[in-house]
Amino acid sequence: MPTAKEMEAAVHAYVDAFDKGDADLAAALFAEDATVEDPVGTPAKVGIAAIRAFYATSMLTGARLVLHGPVRVTANDHVAFAFQVRLHMNNANINIDVIDIFRFNEHGKIIEMRAFFGPANMTVL
Amino acid sequence: MPTAKEMEAAVHAYVDAFDKGDADLAAALFAEDATVEDPVGTPAKVGIAAIRAFYATSMLTGARLVLHGPVRVTANDHVAFAFQVRLHMNNANINIDVIDIFRFNEHGKIIEMRAFFGPANMTVL
Repeated sequence: MPTAKEMEAAVHAYVDAFDKGDADLAAALFAEDATVEDPVGTPAKVGIAAIRAFYATSMLTGARLVLHGPVRVTANDHVAFAFQVRLHMNNANINIDVIDIFRFNEHGKIIEMRAFFGPANMTVL
Repeated sequence: MPTAKEMEAAVHAYVDAFDKGDADLAAALFAEDATVEDPVGTPAKVGIAAIRAFYATSMLTGARLVLHGPVRVTANDHVAFAFQVRLHMNNANINIDVIDIFRFNEHGKIIEMRAFFGPANMTVL
């Protein structure tokens, strides 16, 4: 199993992938058979190809992630972290307050990601 | 299903229950057959009696919850929120950074609660 430090490092690598606009870097954090439910309540993207495509599309908005507060790291295999996404879409700058959960497999790859936010968490600037 | 405003109000009622040290107020937010996994990775408390007892014990520490940032409310049935627990235990003041997830049932009661934190999120003052 990954250590607490390795799980926290994966969160920072995820933020860095957005800073660089590099969907391959983001996808490399995930297991081949991972699922991404973003936002929670929508059908999950299943498998690394669908996940890479999802991040490539997301990054077209220039999305950047700004962490808010410490990454929460459980004693077993989860992290949770609060952040704000800042992106540009339809000629507007939009901020979205999100909390993400990652669950890791025994190889330290993300096997499940869930993103919690809704309409009330979006601000059009 | 509960509205976004009702789900967000449940989070504030939960914080208020701790402010008042009232385990009944906290338990009243949950469904009869709810589960509480706090922290994630430990066996869940199952059912309203076990959940009430858990909160009564927690509140003996004088725990107060300070929300950090907006409550994330999904378009279906979840909230996620970041906060700090401030409590007194073993002659020490302890702060714990936590992220909680609530899932609601069709009656607006919490059917599942999960608390994400670990050793690295605890600070002894």
